[in-house]
Amino acid sequence: MEMKLPGQEGFEASSAPRNIPSGELDSNPGPGTGPSPDGPSDTESKELGVPKDPLLFIQLNELLGWPQALEWRETGSSSASLLLDMGEMAPITLSTSTHLHHRWVLFEEKLEVAAGRWSAPHVPTLVLPSLQKLRSLLAEGLVLLDCPAQSLLELVEQVTRVESLSPELRGQLQALLLQRPQHYNQTTGTRPCWGSTHPRKASDNEEAPLREQYQNPLRQKLPPGAEAGTVLAGELGFLAQPLGAFVRLRDPVVLGSLTEVSLPSRFFCLLLGPPMLGKGYHEMGRAAAVLLSDPQFQWSVRRASNLHDLLAALDAFLEEVTVLPPGQWDPTARIPPPKCLPSQHKRLPSQQREIRGPSGPRLTSAEDRHHHGPHAPSPELQRTGRLFGGLIQDVRRKAPWYLSDFLDALHLQCFSAVLYIYLATVTNAITFGGLLGDATDGAQGVLESFLGTAVAGAAFCLMAGQPLTILSSTGPVLVFERLLFSFSRDYSLDYLPFRLWVGIWVATFCLVLVATEASVLVRYFTRFTEEGFCALISLIFIYDAVGKMLNLTHTYPIQKPGSSAYGCLCQYPGPGGNDSQWIRTRPKDRDDIVSMDLGLINASLLPPPECTRQGGQPRGPGCHTVPDIAFFSLLLFLTSFFFAMALKCVKTSRFFPSVVRKGLSDFSSVLAILLGCGLDAFLGLATPKLMVPREFKPTLPGRGWLVSPFGTNPWWWSVAAALPALLLSILIFMDQQITAVILNRVEYRLQKGAGFHLDLFCVAVLMLLTSVLGLPWYVSATVISLAHMDSLRRESRACAPGELPNFLGIREQRLTGLVVFILTGASIFLAPVLKFIPMPVLYGIFLYMGVAALSSIQFTKRVKLLLMPAKHQPDLLLLRHVPLTRVHLFTAIQLVCLGLLWIIKSTPAAIIFPLMLLGLVGVRKALERVFSPQELLWLDELMPEEERSIPEKGLEPEHSFSGSDSDDVSSRLGPLRRMCQGLGERSCPGAK
Amino acid sequence: MEMKLPGQEGFEASSAPRNIPSGELDSNPGPGTGPSPDGPSDTESKELGVPKDPLLFIQLNELLGWPQALEWRETGSSSASLLLDMGEMAPITLSTSTHLHHRWVLFEEKLEVAAGRWSAPHVPTLVLPSLQKLRSLLAEGLVLLDCPAQSLLELVEQVTRVESLSPELRGQLQALLLQRPQHYNQTTGTRPCWGSTHPRKASDNEEAPLREQYQNPLRQKLPPGAEAGTVLAGELGFLAQPLGAFVRLRDPVVLGSLTEVSLPSRFFCLLLGPPMLGKGYHEMGRAAAVLLSDPQFQWSVRRASNLHDLLAALDAFLEEVTVLPPGQWDPTARIPPPKCLPSQHKRLPSQQREIRGPSGPRLTSAEDRHHHGPHAPSPELQRTGRLFGGLIQDVRRKAPWYLSDFLDALHLQCFSAVLYIYLATVTNAITFGGLLGDATDGAQGVLESFLGTAVAGAAFCLMAGQPLTILSSTGPVLVFERLLFSFSRDYSLDYLPFRLWVGIWVATFCLVLVATEASVLVRYFTRFTEEGFCALISLIFIYDAVGKMLNLTHTYPIQKPGSSAYGCLCQYPGPGGNDSQWIRTRPKDRDDIVSMDLGLINASLLPPPECTRQGGQPRGPGCHTVPDIAFFSLLLFLTSFFFAMALKCVKTSRFFPSVVRKGLSDFSSVLAILLGCGLDAFLGLATPKLMVPREFKPTLPGRGWLVSPFGTNPWWWSVAAALPALLLSILIFMDQQITAVILNRVEYRLQKGAGFHLDLFCVAVLMLLTSVLGLPWYVSATVISLAHMDSLRRESRACAPGELPNFLGIREQRLTGLVVFILTGASIFLAPVLKFIPMPVLYGIFLYMGVAALSSIQFTKRVKLLLMPAKHQPDLLLLRHVPLTRVHLFTAIQLVCLGLLWIIKSTPAAIIFPLMLLGLVGVRKALERVFSPQELLWLDELMPEEERSIPEKGLEPEHSFSGSDSDDVSSRLGPLRRMCQGLGERSCPGAK
Repeated sequence: MEMKLPGQEGFEASSAPRNIPSGELDSNPGPGTGPSPDGPSDTESKELGVPKDPLLFIQLNELLGWPQALEWRETGSSSASLLLDMGEMAPITLSTSTHLHHRWVLFEEKLEVAAGRWSAPHVPTLVLPSLQKLRSLLAEGLVLLDCPAQSLLELVEQVTRVESLSPELRGQLQALLLQRPQHYNQTTGTRPCWGSTHPRKASDNEEAPLREQYQNPLRQKLPPGAEAGTVLAGELGFLAQPLGAFVRLRDPVVLGSLTEVSLPSRFFCLLLGPPMLGKGYHEMGRAAAVLLSDPQFQWSVRRASNLHDLLAALDAFLEEVTVLPPGQWDPTARIPPPKCLPSQHKRLPSQQREIRGPSGPRLTSAEDRHHHGPHAPSPELQRTGRLFGGLIQDVRRKAPWYLSDFLDALHLQCFSAVLYIYLATVTNAITFGGLLGDATDGAQGVLESFLGTAVAGAAFCLMAGQPLTILSSTGPVLVFERLLFSFSRDYSLDYLPFRLWVGIWVATFCLVLVATEASVLVRYFTRFTEEGFCALISLIFIYDAVGKMLNLTHTYPIQKPGSSAYGCLCQYPGPGGNDSQWIRTRPKDRDDIVSMDLGLINASLLPPPECTRQGGQPRGPGCHTVPDIAFFSLLLFLTSFFFAMALKCVKTSRFFPSVVRKGLSDFSSVLAILLGCGLDAFLGLATPKLMVPREFKPTLPGRGWLVSPFGTNPWWWSVAAALPALLLSILIFMDQQITAVILNRVEYRLQKGAGFHLDLFCVAVLMLLTSVLGLPWYVSATVISLAHMDSLRRESRACAPGELPNFLGIREQRLTGLVVFILTGASIFLAPVLKFIPMPVLYGIFLYMGVAALSSIQFTKRVKLLLMPAKHQPDLLLLRHVPLTRVHLFTAIQLVCLGLLWIIKSTPAAIIFPLMLLGLVGVRKALERVFSPQELLWLDELMPEEERSIPEKGLEPEHSFSGSDSDDVSSRLGPLRRMCQGLGERSCPGAK
Repeated sequence: MEMKLPGQEGFEASSAPRNIPSGELDSNPGPGTGPSPDGPSDTESKELGVPKDPLLFIQLNELLGWPQALEWRETGSSSASLLLDMGEMAPITLSTSTHLHHRWVLFEEKLEVAAGRWSAPHVPTLVLPSLQKLRSLLAEGLVLLDCPAQSLLELVEQVTRVESLSPELRGQLQALLLQRPQHYNQTTGTRPCWGSTHPRKASDNEEAPLREQYQNPLRQKLPPGAEAGTVLAGELGFLAQPLGAFVRLRDPVVLGSLTEVSLPSRFFCLLLGPPMLGKGYHEMGRAAAVLLSDPQFQWSVRRASNLHDLLAALDAFLEEVTVLPPGQWDPTARIPPPKCLPSQHKRLPSQQREIRGPSGPRLTSAEDRHHHGPHAPSPELQRTGRLFGGLIQDVRRKAPWYLSDFLDALHLQCFSAVLYIYLATVTNAITFGGLLGDATDGAQGVLESFLGTAVAGAAFCLMAGQPLTILSSTGPVLVFERLLFSFSRDYSLDYLPFRLWVGIWVATFCLVLVATEASVLVRYFTRFTEEGFCALISLIFIYDAVGKMLNLTHTYPIQKPGSSAYGCLCQYPGPGGNDSQWIRTRPKDRDDIVSMDLGLINASLLPPPECTRQGGQPRGPGCHTVPDIAFFSLLLFLTSFFFAMALKCVKTSRFFPSVVRKGLSDFSSVLAILLGCGLDAFLGLATPKLMVPREFKPTLPGRGWLVSPFGTNPWWWSVAAALPALLLSILIFMDQQITAVILNRVEYRLQKGAGFHLDLFCVAVLMLLTSVLGLPWYVSATVISLAHMDSLRRESRACAPGELPNFLGIREQRLTGLVVFILTGASIFLAPVLKFIPMPVLYGIFLYMGVAALSSIQFTKRVKLLLMPAKHQPDLLLLRHVPLTRVHLFTAIQLVCLGLLWIIKSTPAAIIFPLMLLGLVGVRKALERVFSPQELLWLDELMPEEERSIPEKGLEPEHSFSGSDSDDVSSRLGPLRRMCQGLGERSCPGAK
């Protein structure tokens, strides 16, 4: 097996010096293929400060050659005979052929020859002997590092210059290697391209890539600057000895039609030999390709200067492989790509790590978090110690970006974001407006909701620290307003003036909070507090939705067989006098049952509305009942709820292209409302509808747009309003700041900084404005803001099959929000359409929001654990680290807290519930006496003081294979809070 | 590293001779722990004809010892400090300890120390270096094969007799090895048992197993005769050199409290050494344990006679391991046990295979199928060539088993089977009876359904060839009967006499089919035919259910606002004459609206039923409308449908213990009906109810139990009845025989043989009987019969964690069926209860049956593929082997066939649809011209003539990792037909 090329050592010595990445020059290809200004790999490289190795596309070409022609025909028989059967293509005339059957970028794809399609990307699995055989073949074979070949012909000449080959054999081999390989092209049809091959023809036009190479859909997926690596493996009957060669080209060149996609080739590996038992060379070729697809091996081999480096890289690979025992694992199983890949940072030797990471998979958010520490205090949340210091800093930080906040919006993606968020905002405005009208007996309404959303939202987008935030009516504020209204009714107060004073006080308190930089306390709101907050509001939503629905059955009672609700007569005022009228309404048809002769003079059986119009008076027990409405409302309620839930799940289904799925899922609420309206319109029953004013004036009759400061209330109520205002301030502070923390998380890679104090300041000012105008109150809404950010994600378009796209950041600007709210304001003129929306549909959407919010929190998952036998519980990380009884204890404490909150909510003292929510922080503090910091780390988050007591080790991420667990990773990493404010169907982008 | 024991070679030479399985003697342990007569391993061994190696339980004990005490404390810190915090247990006082952290039977379980629970079983993953280090340690260490040690003390003395140890060190080491290890016991609580340890005490009572060992819940899971293997690994500071020892005990003995469960130990492996980087010895210990848990290695090492054999087995293991590259796989991920393990047969050298298979996982049904060939013609289906030859053979085959058919039923399992199948049968009888009554205007009814089911079912159980079959009204026959009824109405025929003649002719035709042994043609009914059959019937079910529901809205119209359906008066016959009556019905309360003074004399507003009772006459448009019924019926319909669907899915959820889940899922129809009845009773509305006769007489008024032979029909209709009878015969033959083939599949391991001809004969006789009595017609019902067989499965109770239980066979007997039908007959007296069942609920169950049947066939899966982008399609085996366009073409042809069948069904010629179903066989034959045999093999099955053309290779099973794919494997292996006959919620046992 002495196949050393004469002078090979010298060749190696003259290769590139160590530690200079030879791929560096190629990461910025020529202007023709240049990346877009905000192209993904470019940006990421800039962030890292160093250029990046290009992506490597690897393919395995199998040589099936003479004199194995017969044998090859047998292996390929099923397809070949099929072809002959079908008579679609010419029969195979040549005895040698090169076929591509496997390809890799990060994961393996196999060509299903019979089915004519590429398999789904999967984790490649190897057998150990193939790796060992590859190692010995390479060790004794030809290794050319930084080979100067400029074409396939040159390359083939180089690799066949081995002593063991006779000139004749060399010629045969060269002919074989130069023949055009058979690529399967997805665009040309469903079968591999079995066209005739001309062994020498390929070398003639080898520099001209084939049309199929350009048309290959994989091309669009690969980033500019990607390089190719080709492995050629096969059994050749005329070879007496194995022939192994590994080539790294100095300058990557397009090697004709060698690769499936027309890419400059960097690596070339040849593994040929006489026939051996099993699929020896095929498996060896796969092993070589898998090696090349490994980021760490790739990094090393790009920098290897001799055979020793190459073998060392292979050995390093072997040191780290995962081994599955044959008795417990089926080697033919295909493993889908894991959701989370281990960091390639850890695998690099320290000096390499200093230079840069290899072109491995991106950092997962789990690692991000790990790198930044569990609670890296963001600079925005550090106390300055001066009055309004935080606010001033916020303004200073944001001012330089103000111009770019508008220029950065000039991107097509912003249009679709506007459409999506506009529809979501309008749905929110309708739903919350309708419910607010219900809750306040019309003191607020849909018109106020639209106007307020538009004014407050647009103002916030223009002024705020975090302009990506979408202001909305939120669940907690809605609940408080309902309580405030019933409070003012209990004391016979004029609601809007009283509310004005509450608003004035809240604005004052919030200004005090801004002045004292209270926002830095937000870190005491751990997941325990957030989940208590969210669970309570969700439960109130669910309870209210079902309650309102059941109320409808009182308004429209169900008519049971025994009930006496059948009869209704139309009685005319005076006896005899209406004879003419009676005769006039009597139709000509004698059989008409309405005018049936009942021996009556002054009555008819006209339906009540008709009767009233005729001047009569409906009399009888059946006149006030509207049949069928109760059950039909229930049907509408259930339909809109289940339809919204089902559409939300469409996102994870396999049906339809992902664009359609995303659309259906994103617009689930809108579509559910439309379906409900359609059903209602189709049957035309008199269901209760959304109340919409006929003209542009406040819903409450007789008031102007400005709320009078006192109304009929005694003056001292303006002072007493400070007390509920204090409670509302707590609520608004918690609601606003928890949302702000979520939106400004590290994993969103925001560049322009946050403005916690500035945001709160804006909320305070808008509080004042909306109170004066009698509009609803607004704070930041978590879910819809996250959806906004999600629709503005910048992602790398090109990525390896099976790999998730790289998240690069978010288009931070003020324009999308502004346009959304201007459109919302313009939608006030939609009012004539809105009055067709049945209330049961809105209750259904309301229920859906509550259920969606409740089901998204970890607390719910833990409650479900209570019902599961230990054996069937999912492999959650927290269950690996905390005893089950402790998990249940924590859940039970949360349930008890929730029960107490619910009891308080049901008493006349319900209005103090914000204080009780704040009390959750105290309960959480007390839990430190029951649970250890380690347990709290897994069950909750840590409060600032506790963090010091935890060794870094405790945070080491472990991954599980099961899909559900990756959810767990992300939910552990941060309070994935979905406040009950928005559509509820979007998860946080960082969790992807 | 020369740690050879003096005289080791001699010791090895004296070990057991080759090829005599040393475990043989232990497979039948003493009478105290003897297996039950039909114990699983026993039966299986008998089948194989050779004894089996005992199951091996392996555990890894870690030695954490002096002077690493401090270091150990650090690794265990989180739990240790917790303990001290909680003050629950004594602090750790000793500096050495042995802890069990991992265990294996087939899959690995890891002790989650912090959480205090065993992890879910998972596929063990190793790193390659640990295997290599283990190999070199064993190669240079001590290997004792068939060591005669009788106690732990002797064993420890043997393994520490190495030259490299000084006497002092040896003493220390022995003390360490003899100390009682710390076992985590699940029964004592959620934390590991950290009780104080006494290094020398353990040796005193080492023969007395600990209480925890007996209480360990794992003990119940291990079969009698199981043996233990222990790996002790750890770093010991006082050792200068690594110390490796591998011991196979000649006679397995209980080594005191060494193992978690008190089991006789067979293997003992010691891997100790000075501290090294990383978790070296821990990983080496895991590698040794994983090796021991591999069936093939176990087989070899039980028979190894020297070190060379041991290393050869290790190398053989290494040859077969699956390797996952580090860059594409996270080594910390836990892989759940695969649903399908590769056959261990393939891994054995040929001479071993001849002796017996290792104690590996059972054959999967996929392999079963493979072993028996794709279509092994069963002996029951071979043509004898004589008239009634098949029937005679069937009787001869079954007669010898007749007594055992009753004796074999004496098992507790049969009681639960009776309960389950009884409820399913009664549900079927109610549903089909109700629908038949609907379809035939009361010529048939619930009473007939009960009576017929009881009589026919019991008679079949006593006489038939396959007594596990449950006879039932089936979808196809129901559809035909409906068509026959409308046909006879079109010709103004007396239905039951006409039907009697149809029955007589069908019985005659069936006898001809029995005489000519036509049942052997059943192999021409491939999946294509079956699925067309099933899809058509399912669609008719769905169409009918929805149609009947919508019909209700015509009977009980919805009252729209404009409709004049308000008024209804109660008019009394004569003017003035009823004054007294009017006054009598007038309540005293002046405000009562019913008696409101309307200026009427001879009318009141009483509700219609009350009015009629008072002698009045309801007059007016509103008198005949019953409000709210339409929507409430719709609600009941949807509720019962969705509730049944949801309960069916409970089986695969994580909630509740598996018994509860199975119960909820098995009784989903019953529970859904109960829920519907409860809702209906709660609201008390006048929904349409099931018609039940008040006494024991035929539903049709005025007929006796015997149907008159001609009635009012002309005599020649008795001859003309032969034509529809021919069609019905086709239907019954197809329905009966396809079911029979499914029930007698090889994978059910039936011992007593089938009786295809006998079964058809019984069906013919019963056809005659039921026609004479005017009862419904019955054939074998696939789904409920499969459920019956499933409830009688014999499975091995003891199995490795993570492994599925072994299927041993089915309790074949006649008693369960007989008892079920006797109970069904007795249930005729349930009639007074049945009249509370609302019809919409039954329609909902009807819809559920149709949907469940439709969704279970592969055709539906392929229709779904039409909606999926290629990228998101599941990794189905057929998609790997057939081009997508060909799959779609096949689906489209099926859709066209179905469309044509549907069109025929909608014409007046609907009654000929059985002929069209038979036509599907012809279409399938014609498909051979469009598709290749390979494609048809994957898309369908092969017809008898085609089988010869397929090489065996085409059937080689491949496995995919994804769960959905294992469904695919099973569905490819046979027509998993769920005829629309039964509950629809059970899958075939072979698919498990």
